[in-house]
Amino acid sequence: MAVYTDVAADELADFLSQYDLGELLSYKGIAEGVENSNFLLHTTKGSFILTLYEKRVAKNDLPFFLALMTHLAEHGVNCPLPVKGRDGEALRELSGRPAAIITFLEGVWPRKPNAAHCAGVGEGLARMHLAGANFAIRRANALSVAGWRPLFDAAASRADEVQPGLRAFLAAELDYLASGVWPTNLPEGVIHADLFNDNVFFLGDKLSGIIDFTFACNDMLAYDVAICLNAWCFEPDHSFNVTKARAFLNAYGRVRKLSEAEEAALPLLARGAAIRFLLTRLVDWLNVPPGALVRPKDPLEYVRKLRFHQSVSSVRDYGLMPSGLVA
Amino acid sequence: MAVYTDVAADELADFLSQYDLGELLSYKGIAEGVENSNFLLHTTKGSFILTLYEKRVAKNDLPFFLALMTHLAEHGVNCPLPVKGRDGEALRELSGRPAAIITFLEGVWPRKPNAAHCAGVGEGLARMHLAGANFAIRRANALSVAGWRPLFDAAASRADEVQPGLRAFLAAELDYLASGVWPTNLPEGVIHADLFNDNVFFLGDKLSGIIDFTFACNDMLAYDVAICLNAWCFEPDHSFNVTKARAFLNAYGRVRKLSEAEEAALPLLARGAAIRFLLTRLVDWLNVPPGALVRPKDPLEYVRKLRFHQSVSSVRDYGLMPSGLVA
Repeated sequence: MAVYTDVAADELADFLSQYDLGELLSYKGIAEGVENSNFLLHTTKGSFILTLYEKRVAKNDLPFFLALMTHLAEHGVNCPLPVKGRDGEALRELSGRPAAIITFLEGVWPRKPNAAHCAGVGEGLARMHLAGANFAIRRANALSVAGWRPLFDAAASRADEVQPGLRAFLAAELDYLASGVWPTNLPEGVIHADLFNDNVFFLGDKLSGIIDFTFACNDMLAYDVAICLNAWCFEPDHSFNVTKARAFLNAYGRVRKLSEAEEAALPLLARGAAIRFLLTRLVDWLNVPPGALVRPKDPLEYVRKLRFHQSVSSVRDYGLMPSGLVA
Repeated sequence: MAVYTDVAADELADFLSQYDLGELLSYKGIAEGVENSNFLLHTTKGSFILTLYEKRVAKNDLPFFLALMTHLAEHGVNCPLPVKGRDGEALRELSGRPAAIITFLEGVWPRKPNAAHCAGVGEGLARMHLAGANFAIRRANALSVAGWRPLFDAAASRADEVQPGLRAFLAAELDYLASGVWPTNLPEGVIHADLFNDNVFFLGDKLSGIIDFTFACNDMLAYDVAICLNAWCFEPDHSFNVTKARAFLNAYGRVRKLSEAEEAALPLLARGAAIRFLLTRLVDWLNVPPGALVRPKDPLEYVRKLRFHQSVSSVRDYGLMPSGLVA
């Protein structure tokens, strides 16, 4: 939760005069998102989200994110549509930060997701993967295998302060994942890469919005599936809920069928997804700046999740009947 | 900026079912207010603010705040109107906290107030004082003279860490203000007691809302005027802007004329107001809890303001021609 950069009312009114969005009625900094400053605007034309991109987001990536949202929204995905100014540009500057306005999506993110939510996410993720297929711009995933080692190096010397033995546990897992086992020939495309429950809105049980594309990139589509298994299918006590996983995977499969190779790779991809979030959380945990406005998330949650995936032998353990057997 | 308590979507939907506010469309924690958790709700009936009152606000005071807002809104003040549930109650409980829904006011608070804003505040404050005249419930001001000494005692031993000599400076001022000089016979009524710029909304130059009555109480009306002199009429470099003060005081006086006694007391009341905010900020500054989500405000700003008021000899220095001379 954070607003890192405040905006003066007259500055914002000037900024809005470049758009066809009517008069400013109000704006409130919203306590969601940890990377950027977000404001909910009311204008005489409706509700919008204003984002000021803070330094943690690379400026060069912003055209990718905005073009992707535009592409997806135009291809039927329930995601925010970047609003263009009268000059045709969606990206400009405000208070010394790159800034953009996107449409506001009604809906609430589920604090306690149920199986119906997981099914909604599965369907929505698959639709997003299909809609992204012909998106032209590419962005590498900086947080895949090659990106994990530098994170580990940054945190290793103090990892055991967080949990005794954590350093060795992480080192062994990284060695394994870097030993040539990581899949390379699975279908690729645009992935969200951060589809946690606070990035998915519902009205009732119906998915009404997918937001926050600041980690979106090109990678294996099944890796996005593996991230969601981590993000949606564990209980608050970190136990795996196979009913939710089955609902998620079946709903995904009805829209975009996972290949046998993708299914077979899922346990490994889930281990990778777990260590990715474990490492970024660990680095954040060990580097809380003085006066931080954001409480870091607990990295140890992902130790538990990673151990679970290490114990998985096939997608059966995720509630899915392997395709090979169904055929 | 803070949301201390999050609310689950199903909990909130249950809560809303006690009102006639239609269906929940969305809710966002908003990064304003340091005492409570506030959410901006969209329902099929419009926009509303949901407040969860955190422990710093005494539960016994909540009926006063809600009844006061209702009274003021019904007497023409642009302030939020508490929304009653079907049972006629505005105050209930959510996520283990006392909670209330109030109407949402459009408008933006001025980050850089100009003289027109100050005039708007003067007029609005005077109207609020008149509208509060026949409000029946009473609440003592816990942060007047008698409340300052305990704050000083809590901070004194470490005051010089913040600025060398601060302890002696505060002790001398408190001794002076407690020496029998503090006025006792000025007109009293309901005061806002915290009318800073983030609590006043404007649409253009027109005041559209006065919010956050969590410090409202009964006290001398001119003390509220003195608080606003501190809150609105200094520049970011802490210099006093007499043009803004004149605009504020003249606008106030056109709606509710200050008596000669009130005018004469203004420099002293302004010293009291300055030390009140100096002390609470100092205590907060010295007591930032680990993991705090709120950056404490700088107490030294009020040392500068207090020194200015100590140098004032009459309301002339605030830009006002004393009433006695005008007559």
